[in-house]
Amino acid sequence: MSVIPESHADLLEAVTLADVATIGPKGEPQVNPVWFEWDGTHLCFSQTTARQKYRNLGREPRVALSIVDPTNPYRYLEVRGTVVAIDPDPELAFINRQAQRYMGEDTYPWHQPTDERVVVRVLPEHTSQMG
Amino acid sequence: MSVIPESHADLLEAVTLADVATIGPKGEPQVNPVWFEWDGTHLCFSQTTARQKYRNLGREPRVALSIVDPTNPYRYLEVRGTVVAIDPDPELAFINRQAQRYMGEDTYPWHQPTDERVVVRVLPEHTSQMG
Repeated sequence: MSVIPESHADLLEAVTLADVATIGPKGEPQVNPVWFEWDGTHLCFSQTTARQKYRNLGREPRVALSIVDPTNPYRYLEVRGTVVAIDPDPELAFINRQAQRYMGEDTYPWHQPTDERVVVRVLPEHTSQMG
Repeated sequence: MSVIPESHADLLEAVTLADVATIGPKGEPQVNPVWFEWDGTHLCFSQTTARQKYRNLGREPRVALSIVDPTNPYRYLEVRGTVVAIDPDPELAFINRQAQRYMGEDTYPWHQPTDERVVVRVLPEHTSQMG
């Protein structure tokens, strides 16, 4: 399973938030929580194209994600990697699946007609972990 | 209260983890969870001087912290700022106070005699928030 240690691979399947760190326009770090999904190779998350984070990813594809075990705050996995794909999500298939997973809702309730959704796919290259 | 919006100032007092994003040696983002304390002006966290994050802060003082409301996963505060002080903690006063706050323990149970502890103080400059 790529660079992910077996000891912490379960966290890729946890229904919890990941904090995603990106690099801002002046080279400064930015971080905020997202829903995520592991597709077996990539850590994936949804983004609207209007968000600062989307613009950051277009300029600097290196990112880091922190996933804390929802049942043990002393256990976490940090994944550092590169955005290798940003795919359109015009039918909202990805974000709706996320809404099912995280909210038990069939469709993502906060979608706005003007929102253009994409799926960001991160290939893990390094990890750090605790616990 | 500096740049912190009143609507999310309570999260500075929450007993929860903050994910701290720093810039690594090759300009890449890094992120991992920490205990934190708000001193009224700075977001503070403990660090050992042997950690990569400590070396990162010496090279690049810009950081970002994400604090998710422990009672509402759709509410968070991101604080971006600059490390304005790294103070020694030779008597472990800070880390022991953190252990009391987060664990209900009088002393931090994982301290190693060879660990050199410091207190990192971040002055907030910008925020983003949701919820």
